[in-house]
Amino acid sequence: MSGVIATSCWAKTTADLVVTNGYVLTMDKDKTVYPHGTVVIKGNKIIAIGDKHLAEQYQAKQVMNVEGDIIMPGLINTHTHVSMTVFRSLADDVPDRLHRYIFPLEAKLVSRDMVRIGANLGNVEMVKGGVTTYADMYYFEDEVAKTVDKIGMRAVLGESVIKFPVADAKNADEGIDYAMKFINEYRDHPRITPAFAPHAPYTNTTETLQKVARLSEQENVPVLIHLAETVREQQVIAKRANGLSPVQYMQSIGALNSHVVAAHMISVDNKDIETAKQADIGIAHNMSANIKAAKGVSPALKMYDDGLRIGLGTDGPMSGNTLSVIDEFNQVAKVHKLVNHDRAAMPPLKVIDMATMGGARALHMEDKIGSLEEGKLADIIVVDTKAPNMVPMYNPYSALVYSANSANVKDSIVGGQIIMRNRVILTVDEDQIRQEAVDYTQVVKDAVIQSGEKVL
Amino acid sequence: MSGVIATSCWAKTTADLVVTNGYVLTMDKDKTVYPHGTVVIKGNKIIAIGDKHLAEQYQAKQVMNVEGDIIMPGLINTHTHVSMTVFRSLADDVPDRLHRYIFPLEAKLVSRDMVRIGANLGNVEMVKGGVTTYADMYYFEDEVAKTVDKIGMRAVLGESVIKFPVADAKNADEGIDYAMKFINEYRDHPRITPAFAPHAPYTNTTETLQKVARLSEQENVPVLIHLAETVREQQVIAKRANGLSPVQYMQSIGALNSHVVAAHMISVDNKDIETAKQADIGIAHNMSANIKAAKGVSPALKMYDDGLRIGLGTDGPMSGNTLSVIDEFNQVAKVHKLVNHDRAAMPPLKVIDMATMGGARALHMEDKIGSLEEGKLADIIVVDTKAPNMVPMYNPYSALVYSANSANVKDSIVGGQIIMRNRVILTVDEDQIRQEAVDYTQVVKDAVIQSGEKVL
Ligand SMILES: [Zn+2]
Ligand SMILES: [Zn+2]
Repeated sequence: MSGVIATSCWAKTTADLVVTNGYVLTMDKDKTVYPHGTVVIKGNKIIAIGDKHLAEQYQAKQVMNVEGDIIMPGLINTHTHVSMTVFRSLADDVPDRLHRYIFPLEAKLVSRDMVRIGANLGNVEMVKGGVTTYADMYYFEDEVAKTVDKIGMRAVLGESVIKFPVADAKNADEGIDYAMKFINEYRDHPRITPAFAPHAPYTNTTETLQKVARLSEQENVPVLIHLAETVREQQVIAKRANGLSPVQYMQSIGALNSHVVAAHMISVDNKDIETAKQADIGIAHNMSANIKAAKGVSPALKMYDDGLRIGLGTDGPMSGNTLSVIDEFNQVAKVHKLVNHDRAAMPPLKVIDMATMGGARALHMEDKIGSLEEGKLADIIVVDTKAPNMVPMYNPYSALVYSANSANVKDSIVGGQIIMRNRVILTVDEDQIRQEAVDYTQVVKDAVIQSGEKVL
Repeated sequence: MSGVIATSCWAKTTADLVVTNGYVLTMDKDKTVYPHGTVVIKGNKIIAIGDKHLAEQYQAKQVMNVEGDIIMPGLINTHTHVSMTVFRSLADDVPDRLHRYIFPLEAKLVSRDMVRIGANLGNVEMVKGGVTTYADMYYFEDEVAKTVDKIGMRAVLGESVIKFPVADAKNADEGIDYAMKFINEYRDHPRITPAFAPHAPYTNTTETLQKVARLSEQENVPVLIHLAETVREQQVIAKRANGLSPVQYMQSIGALNSHVVAAHMISVDNKDIETAKQADIGIAHNMSANIKAAKGVSPALKMYDDGLRIGLGTDGPMSGNTLSVIDEFNQVAKVHKLVNHDRAAMPPLKVIDMATMGGARALHMEDKIGSLEEGKLADIIVVDTKAPNMVPMYNPYSALVYSANSANVKDSIVGGQIIMRNRVILTVDEDQIRQEAVDYTQVVKDAVIQSGEKVL
């Protein structure tokens, strides 16, 4: 045995997975990049990150040579209703759609089966679009949790609390009880954070919102809520609370704090933004869904620049209609330029920051995910740089924001586990999941036709 | 030999290609759909279209069973500069980018090689994104023509006419001479329509614009031009022409007619729209590029509703940045909803109509392409309905506009020839084309660095 080989063996540290030969965008504080970089993983964590020579220092069980593709933090979808994939492309653009169409449809159809079938399909779509963590608000969240556990993603799952009867609760108190049970069941899961999801201020009483705030403090869990989304909401809350805005109302009742993740925040003024910042809430910016519904454009750029915790979200698949954060990039960058009359506004780096560290901060998980750094969880995606739309790549952030689509995501790693390789999901049976969703369309069609509405 | 078989043989008509078992969107006048449909092709034309039983009546050399995928007209990209793919992701969002960055870069780099390398890459991207026909404005268009001929696409190729010295002409007259030579060379090509491309009113003299108008009438060829795009243009033309708008100026000098295809048409008022309609010009609506540059939103919806000839365009890959019309859909639908404060505005059917028949009308080719009808050219694409983002599909137009991305395009047929099958391009070597483009990035980087600008 030669001394040289022995030295080399002795010097190497063991690792589970080395991802190397890629354009690494760390999204750390200094936005460090390694154009020929390496990420080293042991267990569920990143243990080292650096240039190509780093790979030589480790003896890894598995090495992924990504041949020049982009290596970056997994994308974070800060707001969705994943199970609603079963309703996607149904009754788009119908006025007063939530109250006239969606709530009645849900009253008929939401069930454990529907939630599972929709979540499975949405999870697959998200993984294939580069999402490694998402925040969900829906019913039967324990069913969603099972699908997340199986596919290997990370998620914050909020069980709905709403004042009218829904599939898994007769009223808000029953919703809270359901949520408490779910929280107790999933409190220690390594990838799932259970949460409360009061639907919105206007669909809950002050007492319910305060009870949720109290319990979230006691249980140390997030509160996912729709906030400052619609004109109707503004009117209802103004009437309820002496003309207060939804944000000021939430603050006034003691329900705005660092547990809260607020989706939308469209109709907010500078005072609301300052209040949200002081309360340290997280914010989900859902550009694509917001403009599809002509709700307006959230001042997300100002909130980002003011240092608020703000990430990107897709909203549900009846709203967006995709669940892929990468499909938001173009719209987020360009619509903020449009409304600010400034082509330099919302540059690609900010968009990518919002989709990664911004999302982590919005979910109050920035110490664990959102960037590729030593000690953080190994949530990583690889994006193809060889597809024709990604060539050439003078600037990787530009290429991601202005050129990439969800099909350019090649590989996905969550907590050190490879869950997709070369666009094949390794943890679930994609064909079976799609077939279940296709079969379920007949149930939906029957329900719509029965209601007297049109399917198209 | 049994009589039954003989009868069957005698009864069948011969065809070259039958595309069957798909959700056919014809985009004809009545927007006829065949949920289980068939398209029959002989030579370069569609000879029959109907439901699944139609397939049985034909004896075809080749049958494509698309297993429930969408069969629709190929998409039409009414405005691009395909060769500029070699500059993609360079200096995005730089203020005064055209004059400070792009024109100097082009002065250094535009060459036959650059034009060919960029066009090859852009063609591949367009085919993979469902584009079968495009309109291009650039230099050395005979080089672009060779690449179009080879890959098998259809195109209207406009040779640039501009008042300052460019790579293939010292002045506008030389540009016109170059164009005339190109027009004579390609006049009878079955898939290529040669054209004049005066860059814009403000970069040409009145005399040049009138000369082009005269020659286009004489040669019966299109005139591709940027029109009503920027504030600078408005100012220059107002000064030149007693306060006239660009559209009114073009009309006043006799340069607005049914040969013209005008890109952008952003800063147009109702009078301009009426003038454009009376002049019977075609219009290219480039939403993604326009909002990226914060130029504003063209009143494209009004122009469509008023019956003008208007299609979708991507603009060049330094502007858009993709060349895929399918990637425009979401933005076209949603931004018009946003600016009209109406979620029902610009519904999916209108978007798809603009991308197909609208594009054909904009290029004055509506008798040949844009819809699937008997006697029309067989320009057809097949779009995957099994990708997770496309499931379920209650409404195919909704699925295409709100959910699809360019990677969902599976097959492409142009003039009866299959040029892509299952995302593999059959007519050119995609890897070689990409490698040539990647190799060329070094030339671009050197030129940028030499100029004292930054690459990123
Ligand atoms: Zn929502
Ligand atoms: Zn252009």
